[in-house]
Amino acid sequence: MELNVRAFLERAQIYFPQNEIVSRCPDGSLFRYSYREMGSRARKIASRFESLGIRPGDKVATFAWNTHRHYELYFALPSYGAVLHTVNIRLSDEHIAYILNHSEDVCVFADSDLFPVLERIAPQLRTVRTFVALDEAVPRTSLAPVVAYEDLVRGGDEGFGFREIDEHTPAVMCYTSATTGNPKGVLYTHRAIYLHTSVLCFADGFGFRESDTFLPMVPMFHANAWGIPFAAAWMGSKMVLPGERPRAVDILDLIESERVTFAAAPVSVGIEMVNELQKKRRDLGSVRAILLGGQATPKAVMDFFQSEFGIPIYTAWGSTELAPIATFSHIKRHQLGWSAEEKIGIRVRQGMASPGVELKVLGEDGSPVPWDDRHVGEAYVRAPWGSTSYYNDPRSAEGFVDGWWKSGDMATIDQEGVLRLVDRAKDLIKSGGEWISSIELENALMAHPGVREAAVVAMPHEKWLERPVAYVARRPEAPGVGDADLIEWLSPRFAKWWLPDRFVFVDEIPKTGVGKFDKRRLRERARNPE
Amino acid sequence: MELNVRAFLERAQIYFPQNEIVSRCPDGSLFRYSYREMGSRARKIASRFESLGIRPGDKVATFAWNTHRHYELYFALPSYGAVLHTVNIRLSDEHIAYILNHSEDVCVFADSDLFPVLERIAPQLRTVRTFVALDEAVPRTSLAPVVAYEDLVRGGDEGFGFREIDEHTPAVMCYTSATTGNPKGVLYTHRAIYLHTSVLCFADGFGFRESDTFLPMVPMFHANAWGIPFAAAWMGSKMVLPGERPRAVDILDLIESERVTFAAAPVSVGIEMVNELQKKRRDLGSVRAILLGGQATPKAVMDFFQSEFGIPIYTAWGSTELAPIATFSHIKRHQLGWSAEEKIGIRVRQGMASPGVELKVLGEDGSPVPWDDRHVGEAYVRAPWGSTSYYNDPRSAEGFVDGWWKSGDMATIDQEGVLRLVDRAKDLIKSGGEWISSIELENALMAHPGVREAAVVAMPHEKWLERPVAYVARRPEAPGVGDADLIEWLSPRFAKWWLPDRFVFVDEIPKTGVGKFDKRRLRERARNPE
Repeated sequence: MELNVRAFLERAQIYFPQNEIVSRCPDGSLFRYSYREMGSRARKIASRFESLGIRPGDKVATFAWNTHRHYELYFALPSYGAVLHTVNIRLSDEHIAYILNHSEDVCVFADSDLFPVLERIAPQLRTVRTFVALDEAVPRTSLAPVVAYEDLVRGGDEGFGFREIDEHTPAVMCYTSATTGNPKGVLYTHRAIYLHTSVLCFADGFGFRESDTFLPMVPMFHANAWGIPFAAAWMGSKMVLPGERPRAVDILDLIESERVTFAAAPVSVGIEMVNELQKKRRDLGSVRAILLGGQATPKAVMDFFQSEFGIPIYTAWGSTELAPIATFSHIKRHQLGWSAEEKIGIRVRQGMASPGVELKVLGEDGSPVPWDDRHVGEAYVRAPWGSTSYYNDPRSAEGFVDGWWKSGDMATIDQEGVLRLVDRAKDLIKSGGEWISSIELENALMAHPGVREAAVVAMPHEKWLERPVAYVARRPEAPGVGDADLIEWLSPRFAKWWLPDRFVFVDEIPKTGVGKFDKRRLRERARNPE
Repeated sequence: MELNVRAFLERAQIYFPQNEIVSRCPDGSLFRYSYREMGSRARKIASRFESLGIRPGDKVATFAWNTHRHYELYFALPSYGAVLHTVNIRLSDEHIAYILNHSEDVCVFADSDLFPVLERIAPQLRTVRTFVALDEAVPRTSLAPVVAYEDLVRGGDEGFGFREIDEHTPAVMCYTSATTGNPKGVLYTHRAIYLHTSVLCFADGFGFRESDTFLPMVPMFHANAWGIPFAAAWMGSKMVLPGERPRAVDILDLIESERVTFAAAPVSVGIEMVNELQKKRRDLGSVRAILLGGQATPKAVMDFFQSEFGIPIYTAWGSTELAPIATFSHIKRHQLGWSAEEKIGIRVRQGMASPGVELKVLGEDGSPVPWDDRHVGEAYVRAPWGSTSYYNDPRSAEGFVDGWWKSGDMATIDQEGVLRLVDRAKDLIKSGGEWISSIELENALMAHPGVREAAVVAMPHEKWLERPVAYVARRPEAPGVGDADLIEWLSPRFAKWWLPDRFVFVDEIPKTGVGKFDKRRLRERARNPE
């Protein structure tokens, strides 16, 4: 029997038809329905794919926020045999056009408010034949032809049957941003999605379960929202989808009103949530954990949620290439009695390989680093659900070695076998022959009560080759924080030669399309100071 | 990347080397060691397989109790590429000889106390070339050639590397008893074992985790001890192995002294545990659940553990063909607030399909029965880890239909989609054109305070075709319980025509090789009363 994505939706329909899905509408109101209705609508829309010219095997783009319609497509497209291609709406027009052409998408399902982007790039699109507006009606647009999603659903067949599909058939596709050049495509098979979703449901993992109420703030166009949509349907969990342009305040209101048990967000949103909660407290009593990812979580954020709300912050590590989870934090048997503070010491690290995953950290000489938390090497991963090449891309040869994904992340391993990311290989600062970790400096800076965000990058230096420069966004209530305060704050924590040579105060740290600190941009700025 | 059994042991070795395995020795003492040592010994023994003439692909029998050496072979044989064939030591000599020949085992690893069986059947064995005594030294025996396991381990290589194996390679083999004729062989691939083990670790399943301490009383020669050995190593859980001929009293002592969190036993052992606990109470405070299986658990047993110890009894349903788990009980979101008594009402049923499993109950007309808990049909199952044929056996055609396993179990489904077994198709009693469930009568009888065990079977009847007869084992303290008491006890619970025509009082209900009530023998007795 083949491992198929359709199994997830079918289980929700059979066993949890009355469980709820809540979706935030553009006007801020909440749309509610059940898995019974969701499943019926997913089958209705699937029954219309043929009329849109979509054939099994075709790639179909979504260009959309986290909404119930996007959730329906997560199951309808793969279960029909097409490939769900979730396009990152935050990329540049140039990259979006590249992605739609490179993947050969035949159709784009897009939220109405995102039509202007598609209108701009439409003349460049070579394979897209139809657009579908994820809406009641087609918005005013220069695109053609366009159909309204709800019109399609209305004419659909809720009894539409999903076929059993060879599990090696692609089910989902994402593009990951590259350091240089165009984004790279990653295809996930039905099997990969099934196996990845399984591990999310392990008790010794995130323990996803029916009684959970999920709020994925991480976009559904970013690495499958870390797999939450698939796991939620499979377990029949309540789902809360934050819709168009959600802010930290919207998320917190939803967590409180919908009694969310498990929220997942990029670290940058986690930091915003802290700021918002400091302004206005909420009842977060329903939350059992918050998963932050995309970059290393500052310890100060973990301390805040633990001490103020008793909420553990879960961390994980992975990548688009890995669907995306490769490691997560695990409190071992002999650590169960540890204090909350000690457990944070475990959770700030990136964790152990998930069951099924193989991980190695290779030093410069190509041999595994000792488990001393000192020796640094590059992390390599392979997983039963991991990709081993990029879609139709010669850069596969650089990204994968003998079936292992070469992460570009520099890390150590401690005596418990637990990974700690030191830095992205390209973000490490090489000063006078020694390495300086930008992440450790950032975490220390963000623990300062007057600092909201901080990013540290290398600037060129004649004598030392590179020296650190810190970009710092102050809290509004601490406008007076200056270089001297921060040097004094960092001095007891680091060797003198680690301290940044310069501090640049900014309103906000620039972010990439997926919400990470945009260090490439900062490095350019450091190289060419205004 | 292939799904391989070796992943389980490797994870225990990497991340949980210090976690403990406890094994009860023949003299009652406890042997203790760690996953570090277990993994090292498993590799040492694997490094000696070639010298025993075992080649990858060969089938190798174990004939053994639940011990640490058997546990090592669970990983060493499949990871080497051979097939771990666990032979049921409780079968007749004739069936054991049949099984060893039919599977073409090349070697038998046997506990010393079980050598007499092998000596008796040795002349009939056609493919076995070597015997290994799971012991320090070779016992006195007529078998030849025989090597001592510990001698092999002493000369082994702890650095022996396991290869990556095509996941469709057979890893494990079991035989299931047939209603008539010889046992039928079932092969499990590496993939099947991996997928089945995964589902045991789901939070919404048994939730197997590192912090668990397992005591599998279910034999490791019976349907992979329901998968516990594989899951325990993968999660790195503490394992308590009860060794040679364990009695209910041994199990309870081990649960108490080793702080077991999860025990698993055949229902018949569960009943013995109740009797033993009524004689002498124990501290079972460490136990989070007990899994009983093999036949339907009487509600009285569930009530006892819940009310006396606050321990929920987990139930499941499956078969050797399914590795073995197909369904298990799940308390749904809207049932979480129910009372313990109400939750037992859910747990006495066989549950919902496990994630990944498909289940259908077909009535006599071949269409699915309505979800009304009244209409009875036969349960069919397919699972990504399920077998779809018997090994080299023409009876495959009767046991499997289009990839679905035909269970021979008659069941209903309630409004929540939850399965309830009514009876084995062959155990149902057909009286005057109506069905009587032997299981329901047995459960009611075993809830009587004076009854220890009860089994109900059909006896031929001139007018009604079949009528129920009850075999009853009284509790020692209630020797006076008679027909009239039991009729009075049953009358308010059943229609008059369901009541047994006869009660036969016995010392013990006869059991099959796997510990189930042996109804075939009772039916014969009922047909030919002494």
